[in-house]
Amino acid sequence: MSSMLAARWHPPSFDIRVESVPVPEIEEPDDAIVKVTLAGLCGSDLHVYRGQIAVPKIHISGHEFMGEVVKLGANYGPNAAQSTSGRPGLYATLNVGDKVVAPFTVNCGECHVCRVGYTGRCPFGALFGSPKLDGGQAQYVRVPKAGGTLYNLSSPASWSSALSTSSTNLDVSALLSKIADSSLLLLSDILPTGVFAATQLLSHPKMQPMLKGLTWPASLISDPNQSHVAAPSDTSPNTSTLTADDRMLTIAIIGLGPVGICASVALLDALAQRGLPYRIIAIDLNESRREKAKKVYAAIGSDGKGPHGNFVVLGPDEAKQAVQTWTGGIGCTSVLEVVGNHSALSLAYELVRAFGVITSVGVHAPKGVPYTGQQLYDKNISLDFGRCPARAMFPMAFELLVKRQDVFGQVGTESSLIDRVVDIGQATEMYRAFEKGEVGKVLFDPWK
Amino acid sequence: MSSMLAARWHPPSFDIRVESVPVPEIEEPDDAIVKVTLAGLCGSDLHVYRGQIAVPKIHISGHEFMGEVVKLGANYGPNAAQSTSGRPGLYATLNVGDKVVAPFTVNCGECHVCRVGYTGRCPFGALFGSPKLDGGQAQYVRVPKAGGTLYNLSSPASWSSALSTSSTNLDVSALLSKIADSSLLLLSDILPTGVFAATQLLSHPKMQPMLKGLTWPASLISDPNQSHVAAPSDTSPNTSTLTADDRMLTIAIIGLGPVGICASVALLDALAQRGLPYRIIAIDLNESRREKAKKVYAAIGSDGKGPHGNFVVLGPDEAKQAVQTWTGGIGCTSVLEVVGNHSALSLAYELVRAFGVITSVGVHAPKGVPYTGQQLYDKNISLDFGRCPARAMFPMAFELLVKRQDVFGQVGTESSLIDRVVDIGQATEMYRAFEKGEVGKVLFDPWK
Repeated sequence: MSSMLAARWHPPSFDIRVESVPVPEIEEPDDAIVKVTLAGLCGSDLHVYRGQIAVPKIHISGHEFMGEVVKLGANYGPNAAQSTSGRPGLYATLNVGDKVVAPFTVNCGECHVCRVGYTGRCPFGALFGSPKLDGGQAQYVRVPKAGGTLYNLSSPASWSSALSTSSTNLDVSALLSKIADSSLLLLSDILPTGVFAATQLLSHPKMQPMLKGLTWPASLISDPNQSHVAAPSDTSPNTSTLTADDRMLTIAIIGLGPVGICASVALLDALAQRGLPYRIIAIDLNESRREKAKKVYAAIGSDGKGPHGNFVVLGPDEAKQAVQTWTGGIGCTSVLEVVGNHSALSLAYELVRAFGVITSVGVHAPKGVPYTGQQLYDKNISLDFGRCPARAMFPMAFELLVKRQDVFGQVGTESSLIDRVVDIGQATEMYRAFEKGEVGKVLFDPWK
Repeated sequence: MSSMLAARWHPPSFDIRVESVPVPEIEEPDDAIVKVTLAGLCGSDLHVYRGQIAVPKIHISGHEFMGEVVKLGANYGPNAAQSTSGRPGLYATLNVGDKVVAPFTVNCGECHVCRVGYTGRCPFGALFGSPKLDGGQAQYVRVPKAGGTLYNLSSPASWSSALSTSSTNLDVSALLSKIADSSLLLLSDILPTGVFAATQLLSHPKMQPMLKGLTWPASLISDPNQSHVAAPSDTSPNTSTLTADDRMLTIAIIGLGPVGICASVALLDALAQRGLPYRIIAIDLNESRREKAKKVYAAIGSDGKGPHGNFVVLGPDEAKQAVQTWTGGIGCTSVLEVVGNHSALSLAYELVRAFGVITSVGVHAPKGVPYTGQQLYDKNISLDFGRCPARAMFPMAFELLVKRQDVFGQVGTESSLIDRVVDIGQATEMYRAFEKGEVGKVLFDPWK
């Protein structure tokens, strides 16, 4: 077989064509060729689709995929052209036939940036489905640096040691056999991105007074080795610990597309695990997305919501009123921005408190952010931007996937994240319908 | 005495006049009147002075001052008009004759925002030396909410319990008697602001891999109660811990005015305490400021620099080259922006690495920040903006002041932060000369 079906992007906008193109070959000795069994259509594909980010080069689209290894370059296995010693383990252990899921970017796994864990910005990396690298909405895909990039689902022992201590008793192989591929595909992007967003938000220093019940800056003491960097708990004029009301977390999530839903579930889970009280205001302009968010919340088991929470789904104007009322005009403790445009960033500023945190995982266009320096100074705003390092987030995302099969394990139900699985021939129509908000998360089965 | 000398701001720009004005009176029962013994001229006064921030109202300038309490409102002492029970301790204990230092903003000490420790944004607060509240460059100043705002240097027992455990054996009264007022005055703004900047930078989650030697996101585990929010250490494809080179901190400080110097000293101290290796690139356009920074570094005792550091002082263009060379093109781990203008913010972006942190304590003007959303996304930038909560930072700042008397205890030497102490009659000339960079940090003694 020398040609295959692929969904290809054509500039300048709104033009996805299903075409017959050559099957990719091994180009570099670190490459793998993966036969794609499922590929996802993602909200961030729409930035290119709409022409918001100018991409002049025709290429195969799609950065979410899973599949089966069908070819490996010369650097794999016991007779590898290059010694596998000291390299990422997969160079020694990955085999043809293995079932794999890829994060949405290539990462070498060997450079400083990867070692630190910031795999989404590996200088030797690239985004699948971009001019630099053909994507996964096709029957086959070439994966550069596959030994640093892929997760091998056929060999959970290669990564299960990275699961948290609470998961060490899990029989990962048995679990994997029970989880549908349509669910595992979420590990390529949107579930790690949701976990990343929630984790980034909750780990920000400005959140710690509420999370720990300690006055800032005593709240910054995170371990005994750091005790000298922060004063103890009674630096505030009048009190050493916070009241229950002081600790109430009011968190807005702007954007209830698939990533927003994943971020909501990840946030709810983290808050439930800590037994923290919260008010989450989940915001979207689109009514069907708001309805989906309500259904998802209703479907989450009680262990994923905790005993002290309030999750409401609102439009932007209602949300402003609710935050005003609930916080006595103070504003949200923090805001998750999962849209990637000006109105979402502006709404985030309006909603957030002084000394608040805006965590943005939206993909943004090349125009200025809608904030003046004075606005940011006047509210002591902290901002986190950027892409999830999906490779590094995989273990945390996997644990949430296992726990929340009530949400992530279904297709086509009222509360499921995935709307439908279709053949690749429908890509043109699905891009159109997804952009219009007529369908939810769509997966392509290129062999259906 | 019914009139006093004061330095007053007159719009629109470059117009400070020393004038005779009425001595302030108690207006509210929480007020105190403080006889000012020293007041500082601060870099952020220049934003108003230059007309960069339009301030149409004539007012007494100055947000840095210390002095002696000469009058108290009806809410103080054993016969207070309002019960002092449950209020900040000073309402019960502050006396006429007490020596006090004020943070640069009023904070009530009783509201949610103050309880959390975010005292710089107390909704009942105000900035001294602003249209809302006359400042301290005068013989007397009215301090609203003085029981929540002031630090009582005559009664260190009222706050010494807030010092860190390593300082609990200090005889604070004895220490205070040895520290010059010109040194204590630094506690009103620039020293807490410097400590705040360094602390905010080092506590950011994106710094933790380097600080802890743990791969992200395992580096986010800050205490056992949070273990479920982060995976353990081997989430990176190839390694569970970082190499010494991976952990090298390359930190740029942009702006070497008095706050930049305080931030540098605070950062050096925190890094030395942890024994961490670092390369600090201290940057300023002004040669005399660069020379001052070199002298300050030379004056700091070895316990404040640690064994593994490199502190270089450069202009912006040399700095770009140095960062490029030292980091192999990766960029700075983080950047402290202590200027408050576009060129500083742009330089910070240029210098910082992907997944880097820009901490800004500069006061910014009402125009857009020089970043596009795509730039922030593409480098996974985190930004922290805003004012130091000086009241909450006081204990940490006091500890650094005590430790670094080699830098903060002198006036008029090559390595001292404070250039000179002059009479208030010279305010007009000193504003002019300070704005031109002809003098360093100036203090006014209104009774000289």
